[in-house]
Amino acid sequence: MYRDSKTRTVVKAITWRITATLTTIVLVYLFTGQIQTAVEVGVLEMTAKLLFYYGHERLWDRLMFGRVEIPPFVLWITGIPHSGKTTLGDIVFKKLQSENIKIQRLDSHDVRPLFPETGFTRKEINNHIKRVGHLTSMMENNGISTIASFVSPFTESRDFVRGICQNYIEVYLKTSADEIIEKYGCELFKKAKKGLVQNVAGMDIEYETSPGTELIIEMCDLTLEEAADKIVSYLKKNHL
Amino acid sequence: MYRDSKTRTVVKAITWRITATLTTIVLVYLFTGQIQTAVEVGVLEMTAKLLFYYGHERLWDRLMFGRVEIPPFVLWITGIPHSGKTTLGDIVFKKLQSENIKIQRLDSHDVRPLFPETGFTRKEINNHIKRVGHLTSMMENNGISTIASFVSPFTESRDFVRGICQNYIEVYLKTSADEIIEKYGCELFKKAKKGLVQNVAGMDIEYETSPGTELIIEMCDLTLEEAADKIVSYLKKNHL
Repeated sequence: MYRDSKTRTVVKAITWRITATLTTIVLVYLFTGQIQTAVEVGVLEMTAKLLFYYGHERLWDRLMFGRVEIPPFVLWITGIPHSGKTTLGDIVFKKLQSENIKIQRLDSHDVRPLFPETGFTRKEINNHIKRVGHLTSMMENNGISTIASFVSPFTESRDFVRGICQNYIEVYLKTSADEIIEKYGCELFKKAKKGLVQNVAGMDIEYETSPGTELIIEMCDLTLEEAADKIVSYLKKNHL
Repeated sequence: MYRDSKTRTVVKAITWRITATLTTIVLVYLFTGQIQTAVEVGVLEMTAKLLFYYGHERLWDRLMFGRVEIPPFVLWITGIPHSGKTTLGDIVFKKLQSENIKIQRLDSHDVRPLFPETGFTRKEINNHIKRVGHLTSMMENNGISTIASFVSPFTESRDFVRGICQNYIEVYLKTSADEIIEKYGCELFKKAKKGLVQNVAGMDIEYETSPGTELIIEMCDLTLEEAADKIVSYLKKNHL
């Protein structure tokens, strides 16, 4: 929660007083035709009302009436390894800094202190994603938005997260192992192709697409910056 | 984050206008001696300034200048089983509802979806508490206070949580297994006494006190309601 500092109230009182007293002076002048009276009323009014305004503001700052919370969102970025999830999440996070909303960035390394032991079986992956989902939901319940970026290849756990969150937005970064090898010469996929590494989404683990995904981004068509702009536009239009 | 609703701004404009226009009418009357002029100026002023005030408020609502966040706290309630941690945490949580601050309650059942597997060795208990600590710290970084109630018998993990949080307040509910048996005829301690249950803090696991604990509450001296009042007073004095 935020509270107004006294400085904020003082500065606000001054900007208001300039607007208001000028109006009064003009009005009194129009009615009386006397510029001296108009200015004298203005000066007295300014002194009295600066004080009253300050008190009025401090009183209202204690009231919650009409203060509405900006609904938080859960932005869930999913896709096979090296599809650009982390970088894209970071860019979107940075772009939203100016929006004055609270956002928690959740990438693998952010949740490692919370959920250290993660396995690679289907069940272990699903459980891990569900735990992260509980965390995003807890954040959301407290008014905090999250930007989560996880491979999360299975619909079971992604749909679970969708189910427990209010404003869940799934962003799927669509690409393929071959595209990634071509683009970055990625070692992980090269090894996985030779069968040297197992449990890689996009290779031996099939990435399961969802019909409900809010945004599908074709990674071969867009730069990360363009993709981030697309996500931010979507958020601004639908959630901010 | 909160934003002012338009209704809030309208009502605020009206309460201010009543205060301000009455001042103007009195001033113009004092200067001109003409009640009619005073009222006419008042009416025109009221119309013009209601609109200006509305605009002025909407503009200020977009500015973060001088909005200060109420620093969140981490209230950590510790003590042997059945010392009253959960109930006390719930009472304090309820008492703080009127304070208009965001608080996440964290008891064993609140964190079970996040950290399902917890063991009872010293290492497992410490790891669990540290994970909860990371969660309280993440909450705190986002402006959310927490009320955590966990046995947390070891100084190692409690001091770890203290180390990663900004406003950590440790509340130790001081009592003994014998006191609890006498008060509630507690089965857990009776069984533990007979050696039928292991790993019980206050019996075979020694509860480690800390010199830095902010509040020590002698549970034989106070009712839970009185203990809660003591905690709330401490929070109001030091953190709200």
